[in-house]
This record gives sequence, structure tokens and C-alpha cells, in this order.
Amino acid sequence: MNGWLRVVGLGPGSDGLITPEAQATIADATDVVGYLPYVARVPDRPGLVKHASDNRVELERAQHALELAAAGRWVVVVSSGDPGVFAMAAAVFEAMEDRPDWQALDVAVLPGISAMFAAAAQIGAPLGHDFCAINLSDNLKPWDVIERRLRLAVEADFAIAFYNPRSVSRPEGFRRTLEVLREACGDDRPVMFARAVTTPEEEIRTVGLQEATPEMADMRTVVIVGSSRTRRVGRHVYTPRHAL
Amino acid sequence: MNGWLRVVGLGPGSDGLITPEAQATIADATDVVGYLPYVARVPDRPGLVKHASDNRVELERAQHALELAAAGRWVVVVSSGDPGVFAMAAAVFEAMEDRPDWQALDVAVLPGISAMFAAAAQIGAPLGHDFCAINLSDNLKPWDVIERRLRLAVEADFAIAFYNPRSVSRPEGFRRTLEVLREACGDDRPVMFARAVTTPEEEIRTVGLQEATPEMADMRTVVIVGSSRTRRVGRHVYTPRHAL
Repeated sequence: MNGWLRVVGLGPGSDGLITPEAQATIADATDVVGYLPYVARVPDRPGLVKHASDNRVELERAQHALELAAAGRWVVVVSSGDPGVFAMAAAVFEAMEDRPDWQALDVAVLPGISAMFAAAAQIGAPLGHDFCAINLSDNLKPWDVIERRLRLAVEADFAIAFYNPRSVSRPEGFRRTLEVLREACGDDRPVMFARAVTTPEEEIRTVGLQEATPEMADMRTVVIVGSSRTRRVGRHVYTPRHAL
Repeated sequence: MNGWLRVVGLGPGSDGLITPEAQATIADATDVVGYLPYVARVPDRPGLVKHASDNRVELERAQHALELAAAGRWVVVVSSGDPGVFAMAAAVFEAMEDRPDWQALDVAVLPGISAMFAAAAQIGAPLGHDFCAINLSDNLKPWDVIERRLRLAVEADFAIAFYNPRSVSRPEGFRRTLEVLREACGDDRPVMFARAVTTPEEEIRTVGLQEATPEMADMRTVVIVGSSRTRRVGRHVYTPRHAL
């Protein structure tokens, strides 16, 4: 029996945002591999083995999943949101480098509703025109690379979605991000904090850049900063389709 | 009876990528409004009125949908992909400007699987690290704004997803885009053409920037250009999580 591996996105939290394709693939799997809270979202059933691991072991987790698929298991690697956006898909392909045997396996990625687009939908349409996404974690890249990219993104007048804005071990990066943004964008630019989107703990908050503080974000928050054109209409915030 | 309006994303094409939330909302609606091929994706049923319109009338379509909701109808505006990404959500909010009566309506956006993330999943994980999305249509913005943004995006070393790369009426923009990219990125940068993703007409093709030609794209194509770190592993293309 040939094994396979699917990297599956569970969406941001609500079961109503899990695609039928993802549900069907999970129903076929023999093994589910992932970060503990995401594996916990998959219901138990006879014949399904769950392999939950801690945070920050993405590469080891990917290797384990590929070993299982190579042994003939039907393996789903679960991510929150979309697995291709700062999540497990890149870790699986990284694990396949220099391993022609794993490259020959039946490996595919199934998209999910990303946290950034779920957040944008709850807010209105702040990513309704050209935008970018930046991971603020400096675990995997030096801060000067992040800051340079941030300055160019502002100069290009993208709306910006920030992932992993702030953790207990890295409190400084997001503070510095807000300083750079205030220098470059002035005080009125809308900043949107979307925490735990589509879960019971969801909190959405829009403030001007002047009022934004580092404490408004944590690792469960996606932060969206508008372009120069982004504005409020009633309860919503959106970026017009017309540039200039 | 109070009317409502939901801007709903149908995903890129496959029914397996329509969220349960979107399905349930469409099942409750009295009216479906949208561009003809997207409205055609919604099955007929008694009590559902379909309002299909031509391309390039987004604002009029949004106004019509808001009028229906104001009259007490339960209205779904359908978009392909995610409605917040170069689609109908921004048009609906634009139509609500200067209309406090429409701003008081029950209006919400429901996210969908975006064409860019579905394309990325089929290819591997080319958007696995920092990325941006640029709409190449110059119907709504002058070309010099597009070109400036493109140059800054390359300088920031984003992977880039291009929407609406090329139409019969605008053949020059994407040709110029490829020239700018070749100047800035050299010849080997991977360029991915993903046409009609997850439909029976799907075509996916990855070439080096040197081989890329304007004819490889049309209006049904999302084009993804890698960052300096994007590379092939086996049949897949991905961008590593580590930036230098």
C-alpha cells in the first residue's frame, strides 16, 4: 500500500471554514501530525493515530510525517489557517531537500482559509487592493532584514498583514515596527488587531497608528496596517480598488 | 423582515473548496448577485432569484445588491476566490460611502479560498515566506504606480503573486512586468503560471524568468514570481521559512 502525505489547512478556528476537501482528506487518513492545539481540533476515531508535538519543532515534525508516509501510512499534517502561509507546507518541502526518496512520495498541499483573509473579512476589506504579508518573528531571520522589508513595503504603499507580531520572548520587534510605521505613515493610518479570529475568544479592534501599542498584539493576533488609501465606512474598514 | 447582505467567496473553482459557511449562507439567501460565471456556479432552487451581470460593472452590481438588502431581501454577492482579494467586497464598501442608510444595513464578508493560495498549494509553497499581491490591471490605477510598486516589491525580496496579469485590451503591462523583473532578478528566478486553478481547465507551469513570455498568462491566470530564496525540490517549488 502506497503512503501519502497531505499538508492540510484547518482554517483560523471556526468549523464552518474547514473546506469539504480538507474534511474528506482527514477522514481518509491513518495519521494526523501537527502542533498540539491543531491536532486537538481533529476528532478522534478508530484507526486514526494522532501525533501531537510542541511548537518550534516544525522541521522534526515534517521529517516524522514523511517517515510515516514512506512507511505506507496515509498522513495528514495539519496547520491552522492556510498551510502555505507561514506554516507547515514550507517545513515539509525543506525536510525533502537532499532526500530523493521523500521527493518521490505522493505529497500535496490543500489550501485553507488563512488567518489574514479571515481577519480582513471580519473587518471589512482592508486587503482589497495591493497588499503584503510579513512574518515579524525573528527566530528565522535577522531583525534588520525585517525592518528593511517593512520600510520598502510602506514606501510601496501596500496594506500590510503582520503574522507573529509579538511573543513573550520577543517583545521588542513589534514596538520597533510601530515606531517605524509612525515615522513613515503619520498618526492616522488605521491599525487593525484581529485576535483568535472566528474562535469564541475573537477580539477585533481598529485604532489609529498613534493609539496603537505593542500590548494590543500577541502571538494569536494578526495585525493589519492600512495603505494610505485605507479608510472607514460605517463599522467597516476597507481599501478602495482605485489607487490614487 | 430585515434584509442582509453577505459578500461570499466561492473559492477558485472546485466545489471541495467552498466553505460550509458559504454553502449555508447561500442556502438561506433569497437573491444571488454577481458576475455571470460566478452566479452560474450557484445551483438553482425555488425561491432563489439570480441577478447575473457582466464584467467591469462592480460598483453598479454592489449598489443593486445594497438596494435589494435595503428592501428586506437576503442577498449574497458571490465572488470567485476570496471576496476581499481584488474582488467584490471593496466594491460593496465603496458603494456604501456617503450612504448612511446602507451603512446601517447588516453587511458582512465571508472569506473564501483565494486563487493565489490555491495556486500556491498546487505548486508547493512558493508563498511560504513574506510575500505580496499586486493587481496588474491598469483599469483602476496608472501604470507608473504599478511599476514603482513592482520595483519596491523586488527590492524588498518578496515572493509576488500577480492578479489579472493580462487581457486582450491590455497586452503591454505584463510584457513590461517581465522586463522589469528580468532587469532586477536575473534569469533564473522561478515564474509560476497557474491558470484556472482547481477547475477541469487547470494548467500549472513553472519556468525560469528567462523563458517566461507574456503569452503564458491570461485573465484566468495567477502568476507567482519567487523571491531570491525560492527554489525547486523534486516536483514542487517552495520558499524557505528562513530568510538568509
